[in-house]
Amino acid sequence: MDSEATAEVEEAPPSPLPTGRVEALSDGIIAIAATLLVLELHVPEPGEDVWASLAHQLPSLAAYAVSFLTILIFWVNHHALFHVVARVDRTLLFLNGLLLLGISFVSFPTAALGRALEGGMHDAQAAVLYALTLAATAGCFSALWLYLRAHPALLAGHARPRAVAALRRSLVGPALYLAAALVALVSAPASLALAALVAGYFTLTPRHLRRPAS
Amino acid sequence: MDSEATAEVEEAPPSPLPTGRVEALSDGIIAIAATLLVLELHVPEPGEDVWASLAHQLPSLAAYAVSFLTILIFWVNHHALFHVVARVDRTLLFLNGLLLLGISFVSFPTAALGRALEGGMHDAQAAVLYALTLAATAGCFSALWLYLRAHPALLAGHARPRAVAALRRSLVGPALYLAAALVALVSAPASLALAALVAGYFTLTPRHLRRPAS
Amino acid sequence: MDSEATAEVEEAPPSPLPTGRVEALSDGIIAIAATLLVLELHVPEPGEDVWASLAHQLPSLAAYAVSFLTILIFWVNHHALFHVVARVDRTLLFLNGLLLLGISFVSFPTAALGRALEGGMHDAQAAVLYALTLAATAGCFSALWLYLRAHPALLAGHARPRAVAALRRSLVGPALYLAAALVALVSAPASLALAALVAGYFTLTPRHLRRPAS
Amino acid sequence: MDSEATAEVEEAPPSPLPTGRVEALSDGIIAIAATLLVLELHVPEPGEDVWASLAHQLPSLAAYAVSFLTILIFWVNHHALFHVVARVDRTLLFLNGLLLLGISFVSFPTAALGRALEGGMHDAQAAVLYALTLAATAGCFSALWLYLRAHPALLAGHARPRAVAALRRSLVGPALYLAAALVALVSAPASLALAALVAGYFTLTPRHLRRPAS
Repeated sequence: MDSEATAEVEEAPPSPLPTGRVEALSDGIIAIAATLLVLELHVPEPGEDVWASLAHQLPSLAAYAVSFLTILIFWVNHHALFHVVARVDRTLLFLNGLLLLGISFVSFPTAALGRALEGGMHDAQAAVLYALTLAATAGCFSALWLYLRAHPALLAGHARPRAVAALRRSLVGPALYLAAALVALVSAPASLALAALVAGYFTLTPRHLRRPAS
Repeated sequence: MDSEATAEVEEAPPSPLPTGRVEALSDGIIAIAATLLVLELHVPEPGEDVWASLAHQLPSLAAYAVSFLTILIFWVNHHALFHVVARVDRTLLFLNGLLLLGISFVSFPTAALGRALEGGMHDAQAAVLYALTLAATAGCFSALWLYLRAHPALLAGHARPRAVAALRRSLVGPALYLAAALVALVSAPASLALAALVAGYFTLTPRHLRRPAS
Repeated sequence: MDSEATAEVEEAPPSPLPTGRVEALSDGIIAIAATLLVLELHVPEPGEDVWASLAHQLPSLAAYAVSFLTILIFWVNHHALFHVVARVDRTLLFLNGLLLLGISFVSFPTAALGRALEGGMHDAQAAVLYALTLAATAGCFSALWLYLRAHPALLAGHARPRAVAALRRSLVGPALYLAAALVALVSAPASLALAALVAGYFTLTPRHLRRPAS
Repeated sequence: MDSEATAEVEEAPPSPLPTGRVEALSDGIIAIAATLLVLELHVPEPGEDVWASLAHQLPSLAAYAVSFLTILIFWVNHHALFHVVARVDRTLLFLNGLLLLGISFVSFPTAALGRALEGGMHDAQAAVLYALTLAATAGCFSALWLYLRAHPALLAGHARPRAVAALRRSLVGPALYLAAALVALVSAPASLALAALVAGYFTLTPRHLRRPAS
């Protein structure tokens, strides 16, 4: 590319990555992250009582289900965001990469929380780690909206006036998960229950009730 | 978005998720769930007799093959369903999420059943868990059709008159797997064989024979 | 659907699954099967000499690379086949399911062969299992072509006259892997080397040299 | 296909694989390779102090994050490359297969490096292996560009004059990772830090600054 071509490129999208491909890769990573969660469960060994094993790892099963549904909600949010992104630049790619790193990491604190609740030791630590992981991951959405609000040219035209409202809404998730981290200091099971409530709330509440300000 | 825009949104699909994307994520999770099954097999250690190891874990290999084909059938059913879904709302997303959770969980009871059959202990428990997991997962299809019958606006026009028949057909799977759970109380291998028969039946029977009422 | 509609359906493709979706699911399973292979390698433990560990598991690394490239070749063949499939019926879906089951299983004999070669025991058994797995998987392509030759209506028009030649070509893979199974009885490393040669041959040989009869 | 048809095929793309499908499979493998990295982390056991476990495996967490972002950068480079590829031939498929093999292998040296840094033994070996793996993988891009420069017919017309510049740029990655391998002989943590710097540089530096010669 000579310098004329470079000038031309400056006009064009700064990256050859159409948003569709970024979405496809993100979908792949999110689907895998959700499906890998099951590998952290402990399959009963030959000779082990199956119901006793299930009963013993009820906390792990609960954490597995909550994380699975939470990752699906992250996926819905991811699509809502990229639905209004018209162009991708490097910073957006990097922030999206951090988001995917967070989502791919979720299986780790999920397994740690399940085991700690089963063992009855250090479960506050594990619940704090779990809630902070979800807070940081959800916070990546806020970072993405913060960046998009400052760079409205990356947004589809109709979405630009709504970036501030979207940024404000994106702070609800991190705030709730930070609250869950505080709750974890008192009760790890209550913290997991709060994360379950958040997942249920975001899944089932009709949009027009949940987003009155938009 | 101001209140006029909200009103307009109420007319539009209630979610920015086109059904194509929901299908793509579901395909991803289903493909991964099927492929992860192999990780639960026990690879012969150095020095272990390979044929003896295979012979010993014949039940695990059988459960692996049955689960793999069953998950492929779930995938076919999933496409038949989303083929006629015109719009996705939050409840549908949630029910689809439960279905995917069930499919991603299948590797757990599959491995448990294989190991219990190898160990010759608690195999009735493991076979009940296996059959109930498949019944619950297949039941998510019934739940989806129940919801779609009650919300025909989500269906493509030509599919609306057929929702009742589709719901009725979707009850066959759960019923057969509940029968397999009862059989498991008598014989775990017979229960797995029944699940294999169900998979073979749904895979190979021509559609017009299988669905006379439609 | 009433009986008139059923009659109409008999004319239409017998399944709501477009070939594109079958290809997408197959791509997903093939990609995952190839990528999971790495999980069977033994990561050096803290304190373990890294080069010694690599040297010790050289057979596992070789089997990993051969299987990875072989799965990629299966993928190329899969596309060449579905490139000329115009319609999918249930039997085709079932045969494709067996093919995917075979591909998803490859990581098991790959790991078994690597460990047996490292342990220096039962490596003939493991190499036979490895070669037979590849023969059976490659044989699924022959089964698919056999079925397509007998049901030319499923093929795109231009491909129908070429089905016999494609079937004949599809027998080369299984034959070579059966030969590798025989070689395994004499020398397991030679059998793996033959599988590597097959992979190299199918990857690098120009098509017009490889398929003189077509 | 008779000999006339063969001649015709020589004019047509030498493979029925559209570049879109190669990209889709590559995307799948890259997404899985990135997501599997988390499985090599050590989840705290019941009763284990969670913060102590995290502190102990800080090197593994750092290697995980660096590898995750590095794989995402490989993905961006992969798209930039296939963005200008108009046709795929067998050699290109083979080189792309080697690239994917390298990417799918990254989790192995990542885990080895994390464990060696934790154990404080043989960490130079592990860091050399890590850097050489990244160098070889990045070198596959150079091999691809070398081949494309020699076979410009595979490139989109507008991209042909830029192949030499692209090849030159593609040598930066391998050179930096070879430098990291040399640094590893002195200090394994410094080598990992260099890999992190490379990832940060390629992620965040604006294109027009990073590629002055193009």
